[in-house]
Amino acid sequence: MRTHEVVLQRIEQDLADGKLTVGGRLPAERALAEELGVGRSSVREAMRVLEAMGIVRTAVGSGPDSGAIVAANPAASIGVALRLHMATRTLPIRDVVQTRTLLESWAVEEAAGRARELDLHAIDALLDAMDEHTLSPEAFHRLDADLHVAMAGLAGNVLVEAMMVSLRDSIHGYVMQAVPLLDDWSEVAQNLRCEHRAIVTALRRGHGAKASTLVREHIEGFYGRFAPVRG
Amino acid sequence: MRTHEVVLQRIEQDLADGKLTVGGRLPAERALAEELGVGRSSVREAMRVLEAMGIVRTAVGSGPDSGAIVAANPAASIGVALRLHMATRTLPIRDVVQTRTLLESWAVEEAAGRARELDLHAIDALLDAMDEHTLSPEAFHRLDADLHVAMAGLAGNVLVEAMMVSLRDSIHGYVMQAVPLLDDWSEVAQNLRCEHRAIVTALRRGHGAKASTLVREHIEGFYGRFAPVRG
Repeated sequence: MRTHEVVLQRIEQDLADGKLTVGGRLPAERALAEELGVGRSSVREAMRVLEAMGIVRTAVGSGPDSGAIVAANPAASIGVALRLHMATRTLPIRDVVQTRTLLESWAVEEAAGRARELDLHAIDALLDAMDEHTLSPEAFHRLDADLHVAMAGLAGNVLVEAMMVSLRDSIHGYVMQAVPLLDDWSEVAQNLRCEHRAIVTALRRGHGAKASTLVREHIEGFYGRFAPVRG
Repeated sequence: MRTHEVVLQRIEQDLADGKLTVGGRLPAERALAEELGVGRSSVREAMRVLEAMGIVRTAVGSGPDSGAIVAANPAASIGVALRLHMATRTLPIRDVVQTRTLLESWAVEEAAGRARELDLHAIDALLDAMDEHTLSPEAFHRLDADLHVAMAGLAGNVLVEAMMVSLRDSIHGYVMQAVPLLDDWSEVAQNLRCEHRAIVTALRRGHGAKASTLVREHIEGFYGRFAPVRG
């Protein structure tokens, strides 16, 4: 095991044992280095890895001896990893579309079962913001991705939400690839607006099966417009 | 932006531009440091982060100037992050169970649609291995988790498979928590064996809906045995 891995293993063990909990502070860099008998550069390398994974955050302006705080941001960590893997082009768009369809159609059906408890204010605000006709395709589809992540979050499953957050950039990426291939973007955008409103109406009324079907058709419909072009 | 983030951004850009591809070699540590005007320790920190995310691997025995190889292992990266987040106890077991049920029931239905093309040798071997009655609960449930990951992989979706691989440790973790709570583990294990055989038979015959229902009942049935105990 390399020296920075010794540090990682120690932190993981302390988390598993409950010695370290969310909001707690890690030992200072120097103390950890001395205790484990490794160099301070190895401790710093381990901290970078933990930061990138959303496990710790280092306070702004903190000195080298102030120690990092234990955070818990699974979505951020998976998101960074997936974005990098999308960049290596080893994740096919078809698989992203299939996965989001699965997660989102499940999530709205689940959420519709608790329609009365749902807080849809943020979602209504996104729908209204997307009605603005001066939005660029880029800005419109950013809001679009936010809306889909927010809808998936209504199901109340941390892991499904984290996966959707982590897919946000991948989704925005393939959608923006499609924009130049569309004959008339503003017509497409208008259809997307209507479809979003219909999904949220079904959700609000507690019509789970309908919301689920509408989400599926909405995602697959857009993908179908350009998937054949890509072969 | 901190100096190691400058290095990360540069690598991500090179991946996105196609200048770096899977199997390719990154510039040597010294060259990268000079080119970006950062210290070599910053380059090393960035490499640790990329390694942890499965984006690069460093060859065993390579010198400091030999450069890392671009790999592509989304499952490994997400897996490490999720395992660490499970350790922080911010991922509820209920959410893990719900998510795997969703992914696995979808995957077997999808796979059953191509039953004739499926290679089930590895899965049959796992089923046979699990018949061994001298297996410890630990060893039995390791094989069990492998079997479920293998079944999910039959759907041919890289992302769904990566998510299941990344859940493997979390699944094994909650199952092993349940073992001491069971009245008669060997009876439970015998039921699990039968249920696995039934799922694989449905898969082999191309009965997608049935395989999907059996997987759901299998996962929820086991969880139901101990979920009430946990409150």
